[in-house]
Amino acid sequence: MKSYTLHRHVQLFRFGDPFETESLCYPGENLIPQEEVELPEFDIFKNNGITVLTYQLEKQDRVIGLGESVGGINKRGRVIEAYATDDPIHTPDKRALYGAHNYLFIAGNKNLGIYLDFPGKISYDIGFSHPDRMIITIDGGDFDLYVFRHDDLLEAVRSFRKLQGVGYAPPKWAFGNQQSRWSYDTADKVREVADNMRKKWLPCDAIYLDIDYMENYKDFTVDETKFPDFRQFVEEMKIRGFRLIPIIDAGVKIEPGYHVYDEGVEEKYFCINEKDQPFVAAVWPGWVHFPDFQQPEVRQWFGKQYQVLTDYGIEGFWNDMNEPSVFYTEESLGTFIQKAKECEGKNIDLEDFFVLKDLFEALSANPDAYKKMHQISETKKIQHHQIHNLYGFNMTRAAAEGIEKIDPNKRYLLFSRSSFTGMGRYAGLWTGDNYSWWEHILLMIKMLPALNMGGFLYIGADIGGFGGDASPDLLVRWTQASLLTPLFRNHSAIGTRNQEPYSFDHWTTEAIRKMLELRYALIPYIYSEYMKAALHHDLYFKPLSFEYIDEHSMEVEDQLLVGESVMMAPIYQENARGRYVWVPEEMLLWKTVMNHQDEFQVIKPGHHYMHLELDETALFIRKNKMIVLADPAQNVDLMNFDRLTVLAFVDGEATYGYYDDDGETTNYKLEKNIKMMIRIRQHHNDYQIDVELKSSVTISKIHFMLTNPAGEFAEMDYDVSSGEIHKGSN
Amino acid sequence: MKSYTLHRHVQLFRFGDPFETESLCYPGENLIPQEEVELPEFDIFKNNGITVLTYQLEKQDRVIGLGESVGGINKRGRVIEAYATDDPIHTPDKRALYGAHNYLFIAGNKNLGIYLDFPGKISYDIGFSHPDRMIITIDGGDFDLYVFRHDDLLEAVRSFRKLQGVGYAPPKWAFGNQQSRWSYDTADKVREVADNMRKKWLPCDAIYLDIDYMENYKDFTVDETKFPDFRQFVEEMKIRGFRLIPIIDAGVKIEPGYHVYDEGVEEKYFCINEKDQPFVAAVWPGWVHFPDFQQPEVRQWFGKQYQVLTDYGIEGFWNDMNEPSVFYTEESLGTFIQKAKECEGKNIDLEDFFVLKDLFEALSANPDAYKKMHQISETKKIQHHQIHNLYGFNMTRAAAEGIEKIDPNKRYLLFSRSSFTGMGRYAGLWTGDNYSWWEHILLMIKMLPALNMGGFLYIGADIGGFGGDASPDLLVRWTQASLLTPLFRNHSAIGTRNQEPYSFDHWTTEAIRKMLELRYALIPYIYSEYMKAALHHDLYFKPLSFEYIDEHSMEVEDQLLVGESVMMAPIYQENARGRYVWVPEEMLLWKTVMNHQDEFQVIKPGHHYMHLELDETALFIRKNKMIVLADPAQNVDLMNFDRLTVLAFVDGEATYGYYDDDGETTNYKLEKNIKMMIRIRQHHNDYQIDVELKSSVTISKIHFMLTNPAGEFAEMDYDVSSGEIHKGSN
Repeated sequence: MKSYTLHRHVQLFRFGDPFETESLCYPGENLIPQEEVELPEFDIFKNNGITVLTYQLEKQDRVIGLGESVGGINKRGRVIEAYATDDPIHTPDKRALYGAHNYLFIAGNKNLGIYLDFPGKISYDIGFSHPDRMIITIDGGDFDLYVFRHDDLLEAVRSFRKLQGVGYAPPKWAFGNQQSRWSYDTADKVREVADNMRKKWLPCDAIYLDIDYMENYKDFTVDETKFPDFRQFVEEMKIRGFRLIPIIDAGVKIEPGYHVYDEGVEEKYFCINEKDQPFVAAVWPGWVHFPDFQQPEVRQWFGKQYQVLTDYGIEGFWNDMNEPSVFYTEESLGTFIQKAKECEGKNIDLEDFFVLKDLFEALSANPDAYKKMHQISETKKIQHHQIHNLYGFNMTRAAAEGIEKIDPNKRYLLFSRSSFTGMGRYAGLWTGDNYSWWEHILLMIKMLPALNMGGFLYIGADIGGFGGDASPDLLVRWTQASLLTPLFRNHSAIGTRNQEPYSFDHWTTEAIRKMLELRYALIPYIYSEYMKAALHHDLYFKPLSFEYIDEHSMEVEDQLLVGESVMMAPIYQENARGRYVWVPEEMLLWKTVMNHQDEFQVIKPGHHYMHLELDETALFIRKNKMIVLADPAQNVDLMNFDRLTVLAFVDGEATYGYYDDDGETTNYKLEKNIKMMIRIRQHHNDYQIDVELKSSVTISKIHFMLTNPAGEFAEMDYDVSSGEIHKGSN
Repeated sequence: MKSYTLHRHVQLFRFGDPFETESLCYPGENLIPQEEVELPEFDIFKNNGITVLTYQLEKQDRVIGLGESVGGINKRGRVIEAYATDDPIHTPDKRALYGAHNYLFIAGNKNLGIYLDFPGKISYDIGFSHPDRMIITIDGGDFDLYVFRHDDLLEAVRSFRKLQGVGYAPPKWAFGNQQSRWSYDTADKVREVADNMRKKWLPCDAIYLDIDYMENYKDFTVDETKFPDFRQFVEEMKIRGFRLIPIIDAGVKIEPGYHVYDEGVEEKYFCINEKDQPFVAAVWPGWVHFPDFQQPEVRQWFGKQYQVLTDYGIEGFWNDMNEPSVFYTEESLGTFIQKAKECEGKNIDLEDFFVLKDLFEALSANPDAYKKMHQISETKKIQHHQIHNLYGFNMTRAAAEGIEKIDPNKRYLLFSRSSFTGMGRYAGLWTGDNYSWWEHILLMIKMLPALNMGGFLYIGADIGGFGGDASPDLLVRWTQASLLTPLFRNHSAIGTRNQEPYSFDHWTTEAIRKMLELRYALIPYIYSEYMKAALHHDLYFKPLSFEYIDEHSMEVEDQLLVGESVMMAPIYQENARGRYVWVPEEMLLWKTVMNHQDEFQVIKPGHHYMHLELDETALFIRKNKMIVLADPAQNVDLMNFDRLTVLAFVDGEATYGYYDDDGETTNYKLEKNIKMMIRIRQHHNDYQIDVELKSSVTISKIHFMLTNPAGEFAEMDYDVSSGEIHKGSN
């Protein structure tokens, strides 16, 4: 083991000869190893190619992180596995989901952060086998362990994030409402969705194309019978204000004559089996080969394919099935059929039946497949299983790099199902195939900050749930809980109840419309906070414990800080007409109600029961903080970011750095700074407002809505060009 | 439709010619039908043999009941199906579980209770398809609809319960701790469990035998190789203070020479197929026949079989797999294997694969099986599907009636997995194969009152969860949440982590021991309240809304009233060190802590955050109520109910009617009255205590621990024979 000091608080411990995952941007090659290595926090045990790190947990230690996984913000009591898995039933006992996120932060008397840079399987037993022990089992001996020893947890996270580089920036329209289903499978069906959204005045920026838009599930094809003249259709929808977002799957259909298949075989771009033949598995298209995204030239080749669709006018993609998901292989299916045949005629007993059952269940989630599949890394043939967790990451990297080449100055929407640390530089992710369960609203809330910590910023869950049938109430509450998620998409599975906001009774549709309008109004704040987090390695979603040090804030699992100004505490329980909220400092409760004026109330620190009818949404504005709003419109392009509203809770002095940019080009990379500084000084119910524009952003008017700790409310208009303030009614 | 008035508030509407389920004891034949029928609450729609009842829900209506099902105390927003189903994964979307419980109570501006006496499938769409409508779909046209129109919801429940007769009374030892696992499969394994329980001072009354104690899963056999000299072993365990509780499954193994099989075939006691041959399906024993429990003579025959085990000294049973569960039939397996064969060699495409997958998944939960299976009712051959929901009920009735004949004066422990309304007269139930999920602690809490409403009183969930692996914390919290469930059993599945309280770290075992001791201390109160509920058609578990009419009590889903004196508000969230509690009136918080003295605190009405470390358990004692305790022991037989402790919270005057009996005979049927009346009058910190013994119960000493609203604490000893009071330190 060698060790390197990267920073006063950051140390790298290199075990053996690690595989280069490229998850981080840190130029490790320039480092000088230290002689004396100390890693006092862990007991290290190696055996049979396995490395076990054991950490003694103190009673008060909380373990936060690990990205996409079930369980709480505090993962203590769980076993989590980092091994990308397509499992559509996210029950509380599931150990692995789609992503593999090997970072965690221990918060207690002393704080410690770690990142394990390793592309294979790792298991985290966090006080499950023994309450006082965290046992990390690494399926190998070659890996990098980064240790972050900051006093402040948020600083530790920022250090880790800094190693990953600047985060992915989607176009601004990607913060609008997006409507999806498996599948809107014809142009007319998509038109029907668009018609309904506009007819019911439901703001919407994008409609999704799931696997059925393709010709027999072949990537980079469009079924001309379902979508005749696709180019014109994309244009038609764009004129109506909707971007179309097609899905791209990892597996390439085996079909001679299909150019992607032909080229891949010709150039040896596919993963191979033990005999160096392209590896075969079945997914949606039937038999497929998997591109070997580990090879730079394969990434380049695959990335270029996206141009087929961008040439049609497409501006966004979602990469799916890239764990990679395998339904079955020739071998697993063959073994199963053989067993079934053996059972025939025989008076099959229970034992035979259970063997058959096990074989059947192993068809899809067959670890053997990943052991028989191989990839090439710098001429070395590697068992896929060893670097399994990089697959979705590299597919998405291929897409991002390919798209960048198509138009280097344009931002595309891109997100993926599977992921690995570092993918947050290239794209976002969604949390996969959740269910229309109330429990999954809470699961979403808990996952958001854990994903942010790993650099995944453009994130969201399928609103309303993917599997299962959503009740009207569930969709309303889930929409409320998602108000501030960067990716805001209603998505549902084939065979389930229609889940578009217009597919329910009139009241429900209206209630959701109200919330969509609120979402759009919030986009200036959401965008500002998102971009600041992406550019400055910061968290968009934070557990309360990252900013408040009181005892109760350490425990809260169902409230989050969002950006620097907001605390969210949504309702996630069926039939609830209120919830308990921990308010760690004085805050301003902003309640919106359908068909009524908004309500504002100063809330004292402490425990509160907050009453919230089904059509009521609440956000808390922190003290001496503000949020920036704009008037909603039917899509982001139609919004006017020139006239803003600032909602502030001021006790003395509040400042806010507002970020904005053109929302479509990559110019943001050149100038990462705040575009407007707002300072509000309060004395009783008098306010002094200073607005400083940092660059040539065109903002003409700002309407201020101000509340002081006495609960007094004041409104005023600020004219940017003249600097004049016109006071409204207090 | 005919209608009958059963009571000022209870009406029966008879649709067509209903099947006699015998779920109720009401002598319906003496009723005189009324001419004019009015059922204004429902729209009735009949079509194709289906009856649909539609009820308009008001905004504030809550729908409570429906027994064993997922979802909240308030079922609004859900679809629930009454169709007994062996589904071991109780995810939030599951519509049917093991029992079929067709009663519900609508609580709103006006209250309404209904019971649908119908043995086939019923679906309840409670504001799911449309928020304002409850749509009940009955798979037939012949059924009884009972309508309860009481102003008071609790009275409506009592009226319904009265129609079912007196509830099942288990022996008193059945309120002790019980230890189970699938499977303690040898006598030595059982001894090891007993040794560990005693060695760690973990009180325990019973150890369970799951399917592996049998010879090849044949009911009423004992595998002599695993349990040599079973009679002596039962005796040995009894002497050590443990009852053994064997499982009985519904299916009878097909094995010529096995007397149960031979007799059943000979006497035509089994369910039949379309060709009148015994119906064949596969369950644990492999191929089985199912006894036709609909026939009285079959019930008598099967009930008599239990004597094989009672002759060994067995005093309790659990009936399982009696939905009845079917793993596969010859036909479903054959179809599947045929399809698998067809796939061989063929370049199997996705479509074939999904057909195969569907066929495989349909093997077990195959509705066709229930349509091909038939039963005989009064010489009429009936498709099992039509009366499916009665199967487990009638199996358990067979057991209860059989056991009663073996020893009419002895109480046996008996509970079942599947159930139908009315089974509560004969036995208890457990909530089936839950999981080691935190969410399932809450599910248990929500299910308890709903089961009670249907007359199921001896109930409990598998503590720690059946499927999946329990973490130490989970088991501790689940044990706390179960403190007052009549059936108190830790049970876990094969292949999961060992879940006995001694299978964890020392601290966890100690924390659970503390709670087991508390459980035993509470048995006088539990037993008193249980028996009163059984004898007087009352609820042991109640939602808060049944006694408190404030707005918030209507909504509370995670607190219950238990008996007349206690409110429970357990912790069911991972890593939580406290929870919010709604306290609807002034109560006394009684907190027990491992290795510390108990704490008492008067809590004002309102919302509270209650801090509770992992080893802390809290119960709330209601105002002017009391609970009766005894000293714990290693099992119930060793407890001394002669010396009691009364814990009371007195503001003026508190009274309590204490029920007790011998706990083993059926003499309780003769004398149903309260055995002791306690009256405590309080003036400041002075108390006047009156104890009136109603019959020859031997109670010698009562220790009183009294708190007044000022939080002042007083202790005194009451000598029953002399009537003297000795005051302790105040």
